Amino acid sequence: MMRVRNRPGAAEMLAARPEYVVQEPEAWKGRWSERFGNDHPIHIEIGMGKGQFIIGMATAHPEINYIGVEMQVSVISIALDKLVATELPNLQLLHVDGSELTNYFADSEVDQIYLNFSDPWPKKKHTKRRLTSPSFLAVDEEILKPAGQIHFKTDNQGLFEYSLSSFSKYGMTLEQVWLDLHESSYEGNIMTEYEEKFSNKGQRIYRVEARFQDKTKK
Amino acid sequence: MMRVRNRPGAAEMLAARPEYVVQEPEAWKGRWSERFGNDHPIHIEIGMGKGQFIIGMATAHPEINYIGVEMQVSVISIALDKLVATELPNLQLLHVDGSELTNYFADSEVDQIYLNFSDPWPKKKHTKRRLTSPSFLAVDEEILKPAGQIHFKTDNQGLFEYSLSSFSKYGMTLEQVWLDLHESSYEGNIMTEYEEKFSNKGQRIYRVEARFQDKTKK
Ligand SMILES: C[S@@+](CC[C@H](N)C(=O)[O-])C[C@H]1O[C@@H](n2cnc3c(N)ncnc32)[C@H](O)[C@@H]1O
Ligand SMILES: C[S@@+](CC[C@H](N)C(=O)[O-])C[C@H]1O[C@@H](n2cnc3c(N)ncnc32)[C@H](O)[C@@H]1O
Repeated sequence: MMRVRNRPGAAEMLAARPEYVVQEPEAWKGRWSERFGNDHPIHIEIGMGKGQFIIGMATAHPEINYIGVEMQVSVISIALDKLVATELPNLQLLHVDGSELTNYFADSEVDQIYLNFSDPWPKKKHTKRRLTSPSFLAVDEEILKPAGQIHFKTDNQGLFEYSLSSFSKYGMTLEQVWLDLHESSYEGNIMTEYEEKFSNKGQRIYRVEARFQDKTKK
Repeated sequence: MMRVRNRPGAAEMLAARPEYVVQEPEAWKGRWSERFGNDHPIHIEIGMGKGQFIIGMATAHPEINYIGVEMQVSVISIALDKLVATELPNLQLLHVDGSELTNYFADSEVDQIYLNFSDPWPKKKHTKRRLTSPSFLAVDEEILKPAGQIHFKTDNQGLFEYSLSSFSKYGMTLEQVWLDLHESSYEGNIMTEYEEKFSNKGQRIYRVEARFQDKTKK
């Protein structure tokens, strides 16, 4: 869990910005291209936190439509403040739980998924809460286009060890792995809030690009 | 490459110990159980170096038959010295190139393969020389039983990043990954010569257990 102070009035702030925060997300299932007014690829981040990464990505890649998913109202309201200031046409915010994304996206509607510094849930009995556990991957696979990818960054060694194996056991292919992203030749990295915090503490950052099997070829 | 001084007389030393160093390895293809005099599982290490790991394993696990594969004559002769001193009945040495193991093992004759601190070959143009590249994996898959495993340790970050992805792209499953073996709860680790050297220098040790697809289920 990202620990943020409860922000009074956060829910009202979201409701007051229907152009950025989708109000009836079920209504847009299968129709996100209409909402953006173009058929650019759709990339989503699940657990976007305060939004630094996805705002940076949406600024750098105007040809891609981004949707930031976050379930904590106080956290998403902070992302909204930043989005209002930047007025990005290719970024929308979605205040829902990542486990329920099949309610809001049609089969194959999403082109790519980002997970950044997801809550590690280190205890074995909490494995199922990890965003890289099989039940979440099944949701991701359903809404992603065939052979779609998850790009995942974390500083958490235990979560990364688990996730590499979890992706692999699910049948995903590890296209590329970085065991020390900031010392690598990877270009165009956009830092998240957590990434700045942990790399400033000297932690190394892990990254992986994992691809689902092409269901249409099964 | 492990850099060892050329050892004069090394070839003769191997020839003088036919009970430990297999002299006509082609002759034992499909018949290794006969050679060991029992039908215990067969585990091989490719690139065993001076033999500390495989001698430790053979000592700790008398119910398993081990074969150490090493292509440098001076290096394998040092492993032979140690084996002569320990007189292990469940360890044999094989002075051949790991790329040619299908000449010496029948389909599915091997139960498990170890790779430890394999030469990293960091240049892209040398990718094919890495023991975890696809052509070596094809050899390993052929001699391993269905769903057999490779257990791989290294301190080399670049080689480990490559190998995780290479195993995965080959269709192997990453059963478990360790990003800092010596700080983990893994029990029964037996150190190799390189592992002692690099962990003493403060390097972390990576480990993975990767499983081939079950060909019989395809
Ligand atoms: C540790 S924070 C990381 C935030 C941001 N990605 C970063 O790297 O700075 C994890 C975030 O994921 C959110 N989160 C956790 N589980 C979620 C779920 N099932 N659906 C949506 N958001 C979730 C949390 O509320 C929290 O804001
Ligand atoms: C860096 S050393 C590591 C030795 C030992 N495994 C350890 O961890 O201390 C790699 C060894 O693999 C051997 N080797 C490399 N390629 C090989 C191949 N294709 N077949 C057999 N041995 C090989 C080298 O001769 C060298 O002794």
